[in-house]
Amino acid sequence: MAFKDECGVFGCWPELEASKQTYLGLYALQHRGQEAAGICSRDEGKLYLHKGLGHVADIFTGPVLEQLPGDGAIGHTRYSTTGGNVASAAQPFLVQGRFGQVALCHNGNLTNTEQLRSRLIQSGQVFTSPSDSEVILALINRASADNLEDALLEALEQVQGAYSILLLTETQLLAVRDPYGFRPLSLGKLGSAFVFSSETCAFDLLGAEYVREVAPGEVLILDRDGMRSRFPHPQIRPKPCVFEHVYFSRPDSLVYGLSVMGTRREMGRLLAQRHPVEADLVVPVPDSGVSAALGYAERSGIPFEFGLIRNHYVGRTFIEPRQSIRSFGVKVKLNPVRELLKGKRVVLVDDSLVRGTTSRKIVQMVRAAGAAEVHMRISSPPTTHSCFYGIDTPSRDHLLAASRGVEQIRAFIGADSVGYLTLEDLQASMKDLDGQGFCYACFTGDYPVPPPPGGRP
Amino acid sequence: MAFKDECGVFGCWPELEASKQTYLGLYALQHRGQEAAGICSRDEGKLYLHKGLGHVADIFTGPVLEQLPGDGAIGHTRYSTTGGNVASAAQPFLVQGRFGQVALCHNGNLTNTEQLRSRLIQSGQVFTSPSDSEVILALINRASADNLEDALLEALEQVQGAYSILLLTETQLLAVRDPYGFRPLSLGKLGSAFVFSSETCAFDLLGAEYVREVAPGEVLILDRDGMRSRFPHPQIRPKPCVFEHVYFSRPDSLVYGLSVMGTRREMGRLLAQRHPVEADLVVPVPDSGVSAALGYAERSGIPFEFGLIRNHYVGRTFIEPRQSIRSFGVKVKLNPVRELLKGKRVVLVDDSLVRGTTSRKIVQMVRAAGAAEVHMRISSPPTTHSCFYGIDTPSRDHLLAASRGVEQIRAFIGADSVGYLTLEDLQASMKDLDGQGFCYACFTGDYPVPPPPGGRP
Amino acid sequence: MAFKDECGVFGCWPELEASKQTYLGLYALQHRGQEAAGICSRDEGKLYLHKGLGHVADIFTGPVLEQLPGDGAIGHTRYSTTGGNVASAAQPFLVQGRFGQVALCHNGNLTNTEQLRSRLIQSGQVFTSPSDSEVILALINRASADNLEDALLEALEQVQGAYSILLLTETQLLAVRDPYGFRPLSLGKLGSAFVFSSETCAFDLLGAEYVREVAPGEVLILDRDGMRSRFPHPQIRPKPCVFEHVYFSRPDSLVYGLSVMGTRREMGRLLAQRHPVEADLVVPVPDSGVSAALGYAERSGIPFEFGLIRNHYVGRTFIEPRQSIRSFGVKVKLNPVRELLKGKRVVLVDDSLVRGTTSRKIVQMVRAAGAAEVHMRISSPPTTHSCFYGIDTPSRDHLLAASRGVEQIRAFIGADSVGYLTLEDLQASMKDLDGQGFCYACFTGDYPVPPPPGGRP
Amino acid sequence: MAFKDECGVFGCWPELEASKQTYLGLYALQHRGQEAAGICSRDEGKLYLHKGLGHVADIFTGPVLEQLPGDGAIGHTRYSTTGGNVASAAQPFLVQGRFGQVALCHNGNLTNTEQLRSRLIQSGQVFTSPSDSEVILALINRASADNLEDALLEALEQVQGAYSILLLTETQLLAVRDPYGFRPLSLGKLGSAFVFSSETCAFDLLGAEYVREVAPGEVLILDRDGMRSRFPHPQIRPKPCVFEHVYFSRPDSLVYGLSVMGTRREMGRLLAQRHPVEADLVVPVPDSGVSAALGYAERSGIPFEFGLIRNHYVGRTFIEPRQSIRSFGVKVKLNPVRELLKGKRVVLVDDSLVRGTTSRKIVQMVRAAGAAEVHMRISSPPTTHSCFYGIDTPSRDHLLAASRGVEQIRAFIGADSVGYLTLEDLQASMKDLDGQGFCYACFTGDYPVPPPPGGRP
Repeated sequence: MAFKDECGVFGCWPELEASKQTYLGLYALQHRGQEAAGICSRDEGKLYLHKGLGHVADIFTGPVLEQLPGDGAIGHTRYSTTGGNVASAAQPFLVQGRFGQVALCHNGNLTNTEQLRSRLIQSGQVFTSPSDSEVILALINRASADNLEDALLEALEQVQGAYSILLLTETQLLAVRDPYGFRPLSLGKLGSAFVFSSETCAFDLLGAEYVREVAPGEVLILDRDGMRSRFPHPQIRPKPCVFEHVYFSRPDSLVYGLSVMGTRREMGRLLAQRHPVEADLVVPVPDSGVSAALGYAERSGIPFEFGLIRNHYVGRTFIEPRQSIRSFGVKVKLNPVRELLKGKRVVLVDDSLVRGTTSRKIVQMVRAAGAAEVHMRISSPPTTHSCFYGIDTPSRDHLLAASRGVEQIRAFIGADSVGYLTLEDLQASMKDLDGQGFCYACFTGDYPVPPPPGGRP
Repeated sequence: MAFKDECGVFGCWPELEASKQTYLGLYALQHRGQEAAGICSRDEGKLYLHKGLGHVADIFTGPVLEQLPGDGAIGHTRYSTTGGNVASAAQPFLVQGRFGQVALCHNGNLTNTEQLRSRLIQSGQVFTSPSDSEVILALINRASADNLEDALLEALEQVQGAYSILLLTETQLLAVRDPYGFRPLSLGKLGSAFVFSSETCAFDLLGAEYVREVAPGEVLILDRDGMRSRFPHPQIRPKPCVFEHVYFSRPDSLVYGLSVMGTRREMGRLLAQRHPVEADLVVPVPDSGVSAALGYAERSGIPFEFGLIRNHYVGRTFIEPRQSIRSFGVKVKLNPVRELLKGKRVVLVDDSLVRGTTSRKIVQMVRAAGAAEVHMRISSPPTTHSCFYGIDTPSRDHLLAASRGVEQIRAFIGADSVGYLTLEDLQASMKDLDGQGFCYACFTGDYPVPPPPGGRP
Repeated sequence: MAFKDECGVFGCWPELEASKQTYLGLYALQHRGQEAAGICSRDEGKLYLHKGLGHVADIFTGPVLEQLPGDGAIGHTRYSTTGGNVASAAQPFLVQGRFGQVALCHNGNLTNTEQLRSRLIQSGQVFTSPSDSEVILALINRASADNLEDALLEALEQVQGAYSILLLTETQLLAVRDPYGFRPLSLGKLGSAFVFSSETCAFDLLGAEYVREVAPGEVLILDRDGMRSRFPHPQIRPKPCVFEHVYFSRPDSLVYGLSVMGTRREMGRLLAQRHPVEADLVVPVPDSGVSAALGYAERSGIPFEFGLIRNHYVGRTFIEPRQSIRSFGVKVKLNPVRELLKGKRVVLVDDSLVRGTTSRKIVQMVRAAGAAEVHMRISSPPTTHSCFYGIDTPSRDHLLAASRGVEQIRAFIGADSVGYLTLEDLQASMKDLDGQGFCYACFTGDYPVPPPPGGRP
Repeated sequence: MAFKDECGVFGCWPELEASKQTYLGLYALQHRGQEAAGICSRDEGKLYLHKGLGHVADIFTGPVLEQLPGDGAIGHTRYSTTGGNVASAAQPFLVQGRFGQVALCHNGNLTNTEQLRSRLIQSGQVFTSPSDSEVILALINRASADNLEDALLEALEQVQGAYSILLLTETQLLAVRDPYGFRPLSLGKLGSAFVFSSETCAFDLLGAEYVREVAPGEVLILDRDGMRSRFPHPQIRPKPCVFEHVYFSRPDSLVYGLSVMGTRREMGRLLAQRHPVEADLVVPVPDSGVSAALGYAERSGIPFEFGLIRNHYVGRTFIEPRQSIRSFGVKVKLNPVRELLKGKRVVLVDDSLVRGTTSRKIVQMVRAAGAAEVHMRISSPPTTHSCFYGIDTPSRDHLLAASRGVEQIRAFIGADSVGYLTLEDLQASMKDLDGQGFCYACFTGDYPVPPPPGGRP
């Protein structure tokens, strides 16, 4: 539940009101990052940029969108502002260089950023932000090729890790996905325009049609001649992040071509088979546990109930009285329905369990509301390893399951029982028959790309 | 004067951090009004007030709460700002008069405001706002009694309609509910302090214990001697608003001592009995239709599915491209899950149907997502009359069901069938055995208190 | 220098863009109050109001002015927000009462507010603010007359003290000045419209023509039939505030028909005659001492120099380092020109000396900049009494001259000599031949209207 | 790239509250730029940055300054934000590169920016802003030297034009002035700390002592070992900008060691000798014409009067009614004192005349206020050439004097006569005996450094 997404990207080309469509696309991707957002548009060979802190709807007012003219645009919504400086935190990142103005936004994390930065710094490059984007732009501009497209390919040869990237230049829009396809990126069609989005829910809002995934390792180039595709990398087996299906993505999205609601529901069903329990109610931890809880209820035959109600008006901050309130942090967001829970044996379903501290408070709260038993069911395997591909996870020593067995976890969160989905079940939910089709590194430690040197997997 | 939507009120006394607790109370009542909020506190015989436009968490920062000292406080969260003037829109309303400083906030609408205002104006009173609160305060100050408590009772003899009121004076907090008890008001206990709230979900957040409803017609007086109760009105049969259970209140609240989730679920069950249909899925219109949909699914045996996903980041405004997007207004808030709905016979469950225009768009959207059939089920009877007791309803001629039969409504919204809960079913859901225990005026036109002269029922 | 003005008023009728002209009028009166401002306009029998905290140009943007339609408007700019509540602090004050909607704004202070308030409160009136305006509006609405004009006259019979008032009703604009004419109010003509302003500098900005003063005791009524004048009070000798000429008003204004720059310059000339000194430079304390310093230099023959430069970008707050800076508070606003002052005998000219603490710092600062001698010359008599007619003065015990002779004052501020203008000189500057034509109470304690009971003259 | 107006820089080292002192320094330099400001501080080898749009006092609140710890700081206040992007507009500019973190702020304009940028871009550099600062930082990082100090000297060998620069690194503060010393930079002492400022008025506010100018071509290096000075450039004759004395600097500052008020006054005296006229009043165009007008009055014997009053509350924007007001743009800022001007022969003194449109409106306004004659006197020679060294001047074709003789100028602005200071007089005012000591390019077209290729001198 505490895993945080990194960001969402959206782009469209060639579309008369490119920045407005991008604004709506980011609007639908708002769940992928609420800290900052930006849009860069292209008009008659010039790029226009606006970024800000906060929600998309607050940053982009009518007059602001008027300042972003043109028929091509890319946008970004971002989760966290490391460093605290607006300038360096928000994307797209726009520079002037050998290929004129180039804007870039990306979802994902490079694993060799530090090596690349050091090397570039040694050769005289300066950086104005800690952003991966700036590193990629520097590599592009130092490539030997004399056109952006080839320079980009040179740059891509050097970077490792996870990236779904949109670039906007004075004459082109480019969409790039790393060879493993760690992060999602979908291609759609809006009238005669092409649209790109981290998730398809953005297409739905615009009335765009889903076409396909940008393939892992693919580089799509859009310019006045239309769209071309290139595959510069040697073919490897893709490993898209399974956690998008477990937690991040909106249930109404297709991600990697699969319905998130469908996979999540199947996880719940298999969880019910794997860890049945005699109980009176299946209660999701909202909102992320809802689909799996429905699957659990369906397969187990135990009634589904909204026994925890989420407050949808949670502000960024709230002030607690000095006389502290039990479980305050959780209570501000969730409230148990006493009348439902009283005397009942409750199956709580959540998508994952990271540090365990929130789950502990929820279990306490459900018990305090009168539940006779609380059985925690997690619709993914134990999270034992950190992610280095674009998911904000704590370091390994803060992962509850990294050093504890299920019984210890049960004791820590104070539940009557705890049951995790097995890796095999998860693979089955994803229809990943040979278990080779996705990145499961946070559950297995089996990293497709080596983590950065300092990273403690 | 336009009708006003619901509001929420909260108060506590005597509590060391009264304004902070009131802030948290309003936080939990945020769904009852997002346009404005205010808190008035009492410290050593002086009142302190802060009001603002927007959400509770944005208006009340730490420094603002520091400016609201003392051991008593009342607060208000408001739906709409008629007139546009901050000063007159927000509550509590604070005046200086015969009884020193008095602050008042209320939930509900008086039905004889205009007569009272005219009479007061004729006798030289001036009004700075269109607020009922100011009328009540004027009546109190013009009463013959020489103490606030009796003056309040004199004032209450003159006002008609719906009111759940909290007053704060230099030495007292008073809680008042009209004889019909149209609007809810609960009493709780937080340590040695008393707390009042429109709904009990606020008690849950604070860790306060629910004690009972403030009774219809009751006046509770809290001062340094403790709490006293008075019943100044002749006894009549209470008629609390049933719509709080149908739609307005949070499902995790007790309202009139009944669990909202419980009554709503029962409405769904009875709806399934009353209007069964062969279908593949029961899909709620989120969030208000969820509990009834669960009841419908339970009773009908048809699987429950979240076929419509709500975007929780909807801002106050959003900008639509010039090339208009089909069903844009609804799409910004709701997205159909195509994979679930495709080819399916869908039962859509919503709590009520007022103008019908939104439902029409939702039905269109669900069909466009591939549903084979769309059956609309409404967990309340046809809304045929306006409310004059504090719910924001359009005038009768804008109520779809005021002039149309079910078949016409079906045709209007484009569904394959439409089924409403009957009044008897609604009464049964509320355990109102003789059908005399609640106000059903919006469904029947049977108004316990005559509507205002200009009001077109 | 530390005297603070209370406010400025402006109105116009009938003028197509009444609110925009009023906005510009307030803009020119901004020096009379920077804390809050408001405009009320009238369109087709309805009043529209907007008020806010801050500067006129920040409060009234284009969209805000669009919300203030109509052909009549009044506006107000206010110095201080006693009580801290926006609602009650800003003017105009708008109410609904016997005469429909009435808005009022005033410059001045009533001396019997408390008695009037108490009496009104006893008869059931409530007040939402500490403002005199609300008292006057209550009196109007409780008058026996059945039309606003006569009701206003009844109200005026009861109020004592200083008031220059503009009222806007659904059909009229009224301009009122108290019988003593304590505060200024000028009448002008802008095309076919009448305009009212505290000072004529507002007429200059609009291109309006100065017509005359609203006479002390006069009530001007403007409606669709044109303008009428009434004099309801028994004739008395007017006593307009001399301090408007000494300090408050802008030098480019006519006040009471006299050029402020002209009177101020004459004060300086007479000061030079009364208190000559051998010196090298005449240096004004900017900006208020400039005109008098020019007069002093002219008459004395000593060169005029800007030896103190004012920082025009002084913000509301500034942060001082922990290692405190000598004379910081004054230095933020004024900087001595070392090269000019070094070794020189300096005549410092200021308009008045209230608490003396700022003057002390300035004298220190000028000495530290190298001045050989510092002679303080004040272009008004010693301020020995508080004002109760609309000027923000400290209570008597904080007035340096209330209890100290000139030698003690000299010692306190650390000057080599101090010289005040005499009352006779001041009268001569104002061309007040018999000394009966103005209010000199702050210099003499001779109050035309008795101060309020609690007031310590 | 558009020309940029002046800026102000300030720095201090090693001073316990470096950022607070820098904040105050910028406060005193606010007249050098009101659009944006920034401060970078150094604490234990780390740099902290905050920048924003607007006034110093609004950007830097207490909590913001708390986030800028350490004993070294540099700051910048900026006139205009070309490009509209906060990130790229404001300074200091902070990068991470070969020498760790380095922040830079500068006053002045390089003349070979475009060539340097092109060259750097060809070698793979990217730029995130149009700022000269970023170019300099790139040059430093690409230098062959392996320490910042020498790398800076290498960079300086390549840049041409005007620069007064402050750099802050993890261990040093460096102050640099170009060989011609186009822009000012003073060195002061605050206790044991060194302070740098564009003008000495900032030293006065802090209580710092003026030491000397940073010499043209000098590089001062401050680190834990104290301060060292280097002169890397071949010795040339300095050409500091004379316009700082004519118009830009505050009169209470020393600039190039000369009192601005003193030189300005002398310009006025010589102007009176050069262009005497029979008149009744000398009236300055405030505030920039005041000192020269005093000099003119002194030498001519004609009385000095403030015949134009400046409104000190001019906001960023103001709204004009549709019925346009004559000379509105000027009237908002300046108001003529009718009583002074009526029937008088007026000498108007201003510092310079660029486009002439404002002067034309002022002359009109003064005539409309009743002046019998209006004689314009300009305390500098005709401005015939654009500046390329950091002053915001229009291109040559917009300079009134570039293509017109004095009589044509007189006709254009509608004055009875026009008189300019001669170049010789200006030199005399500056005590520049051989006329070789300053840059007079805007008056002569004699550019010490060739303007940029695209620049039209």
